[in-house]
Amino acid sequence: MFNNKLLKLFSNSCGISRRFSVFNPTTNSTTRLRQFLIITVGGGTAAYVSYKTYGVAYTKAASNKFMADPITDQKTLNSNRNDMKARMELFIMKVQADFCRALEAEEEGGAVFKVDRWTRKEGGGGITCVLQDGEVFEKAGVNISVVSGTLSPQAVAQMRSRGKKLQEGELPFFAAGVSSVIHPRNPMVPTIHFNYRYFEIQEDDGSIQWWFGGGTDLTPYYLNEEDSKHFHKTLKEACDKHNKGYYPKFKKWCDDYFHVAHRGERRGVGGIFFDDLDTPTQEQAFRFVSSCAEAVIPSYLPLVQKHKKDAYGYHERQWQLLRRGRYVEFNLIYDRGTKFGLYTPGARYESILMSLPLTARWEYMHAPQPGSKEAKLTEVLRNPRDWLGLEGEAH
Amino acid sequence: MFNNKLLKLFSNSCGISRRFSVFNPTTNSTTRLRQFLIITVGGGTAAYVSYKTYGVAYTKAASNKFMADPITDQKTLNSNRNDMKARMELFIMKVQADFCRALEAEEEGGAVFKVDRWTRKEGGGGITCVLQDGEVFEKAGVNISVVSGTLSPQAVAQMRSRGKKLQEGELPFFAAGVSSVIHPRNPMVPTIHFNYRYFEIQEDDGSIQWWFGGGTDLTPYYLNEEDSKHFHKTLKEACDKHNKGYYPKFKKWCDDYFHVAHRGERRGVGGIFFDDLDTPTQEQAFRFVSSCAEAVIPSYLPLVQKHKKDAYGYHERQWQLLRRGRYVEFNLIYDRGTKFGLYTPGARYESILMSLPLTARWEYMHAPQPGSKEAKLTEVLRNPRDWLGLEGEAH
Repeated sequence: MFNNKLLKLFSNSCGISRRFSVFNPTTNSTTRLRQFLIITVGGGTAAYVSYKTYGVAYTKAASNKFMADPITDQKTLNSNRNDMKARMELFIMKVQADFCRALEAEEEGGAVFKVDRWTRKEGGGGITCVLQDGEVFEKAGVNISVVSGTLSPQAVAQMRSRGKKLQEGELPFFAAGVSSVIHPRNPMVPTIHFNYRYFEIQEDDGSIQWWFGGGTDLTPYYLNEEDSKHFHKTLKEACDKHNKGYYPKFKKWCDDYFHVAHRGERRGVGGIFFDDLDTPTQEQAFRFVSSCAEAVIPSYLPLVQKHKKDAYGYHERQWQLLRRGRYVEFNLIYDRGTKFGLYTPGARYESILMSLPLTARWEYMHAPQPGSKEAKLTEVLRNPRDWLGLEGEAH
Repeated sequence: MFNNKLLKLFSNSCGISRRFSVFNPTTNSTTRLRQFLIITVGGGTAAYVSYKTYGVAYTKAASNKFMADPITDQKTLNSNRNDMKARMELFIMKVQADFCRALEAEEEGGAVFKVDRWTRKEGGGGITCVLQDGEVFEKAGVNISVVSGTLSPQAVAQMRSRGKKLQEGELPFFAAGVSSVIHPRNPMVPTIHFNYRYFEIQEDDGSIQWWFGGGTDLTPYYLNEEDSKHFHKTLKEACDKHNKGYYPKFKKWCDDYFHVAHRGERRGVGGIFFDDLDTPTQEQAFRFVSSCAEAVIPSYLPLVQKHKKDAYGYHERQWQLLRRGRYVEFNLIYDRGTKFGLYTPGARYESILMSLPLTARWEYMHAPQPGSKEAKLTEVLRNPRDWLGLEGEAH
């Protein structure tokens, strides 16, 4: 059902020019993107476009297509084109703009993202884009932040405790990342989360430690095995281009990380998750992270298009709200990023908490009816599945 | 408006026998309690009853009025009447039953508490009572737990870090407590929370360290100054019977504890909060805690009765849901009890998370209109008030 060739076949069979299927959303207008996506939805297929990677050689004109001006001034960015800090900043700006425009294109009623560009007195800032109360997306947040300053001794100690070889005490740092959580209105459309980030820490001798982290994971309200397989397959393809060992390792890491421990449930059907990635080279690690981030739209948009008009009723909506309560539990109790953010002095809490759903529900002792669709989801949350049948393969 | 004599005056003027105003809800039937309360509500006054303290000399007959059988078997309780563990267990059973019956009496549609008596394989158990989707109470939880076992070295370290002089390592403990959160449906009725607990730890030399902790705090959605003053006055009266220094000290402690730090807001209009209370004697500390727990009904029920039929609309409901989102943030991010509970192996998470509202909402960048009623509440949450005008008094 889902593969990169399907759209081309579909386009050809409908006489639609192939140029639609390999376009660059950064330089194409929103209208054009919308046109394209309505065509695919109208065709009733779950096809999706294979986005061509244009790298990070941005012109000034291209930067006008971002959601707002970059945090770092254009002159500094231009004169540091080869520095990973600048490359990552420009890359996450593009990821943000591409994803926001792609989501807006699904909102036939014209809902758009509210864009807040903010700065942080300790250094750097961010761009927070939120679309709230849309027809398709109840709450969609896509945030980038590019911050620098001094890590507290506590934060350094926390990093040391997970194995980082860092000197003790306060250390200068730089961090740039994109993160997003999308809560659709229709319970048949899953929630997606992704986050890709680059970190640098400078030690007293001037040496720099750098690493990447991130992941993409899916939280359905009703299990659709085909959707889960498509989602994992898209992520696996992004990983496999770089290292055949990445997908199995990062899939397991994701299942372990998104664990609502007190309930013995995973948050969703998983995806990939990794941290402290500093191999094989900075360039190769960046390319891997780029592939992952560019896989977000093709992993998710087809699911939105396929299900956004599915029928549902009060019962399904209530279940969705209960599951959103679990999402809140994970984010506020366990998520390292949320905790790190909220405990950071001067943090912009609205940008951290944009991940929370518009509405959530907690019923005492709720349990799905045995044999129901809700019970089927719960079963998968308790026992993560090997979606692509890789078990037994040598990694 | 609110004082202990008002009901007597009201009862006399209406020709109602005074025996209604000094009754023991543990030995009176629910019907009778309901009758009484409907009379006071019907009278359109905010009067409340002064509950007479019957101590803890329970007969077997009285224990039938509890929500369920005590956790410790009756024989052990009877033969340890003078031991604080038994006294506290029986006391919290009574507090639970009184409060549940008083709340049920407000539910004219007949909603009642669902009662779950549970045991814990590591030792002890609890009784969780939840009333959900009532006409007056959207979600009301009243839980008692009586547990014993071995504290982990981490839990002991945490206690030492807050000043407890304990030996390191694993230690046998006993804990008995009642805790409750009431989320009413009408946004004009505040949410209340209270928790009273007794702790014992045994060291290797056989010596016992014991202490009490607890508190009661109010979270209104719309500020009613008269309500806040009544609430604080009732708590102050309970404190003042024991030590004139308690209310000012524990009022400040409450403002400091229920702090949603990332938002710079308190959870509500405060109340009292204390921990590690082991003076002047065990008997006197128990009597103080008893007074506090017995002040819950007179501090809160009049507010329910006064506002449960107030008019409100969509706007007020939405604000209530947003404030409930903040309540969830406090409970899941900061509350020590919730964290301690959820990280305890074998914890009954349904009993811990019964404190969460049925529904909560998060809007990105919501801010009340300047000058609105919502802004007036927010102002008080940012700058806790001296409700009883005690500032400047010598403590």
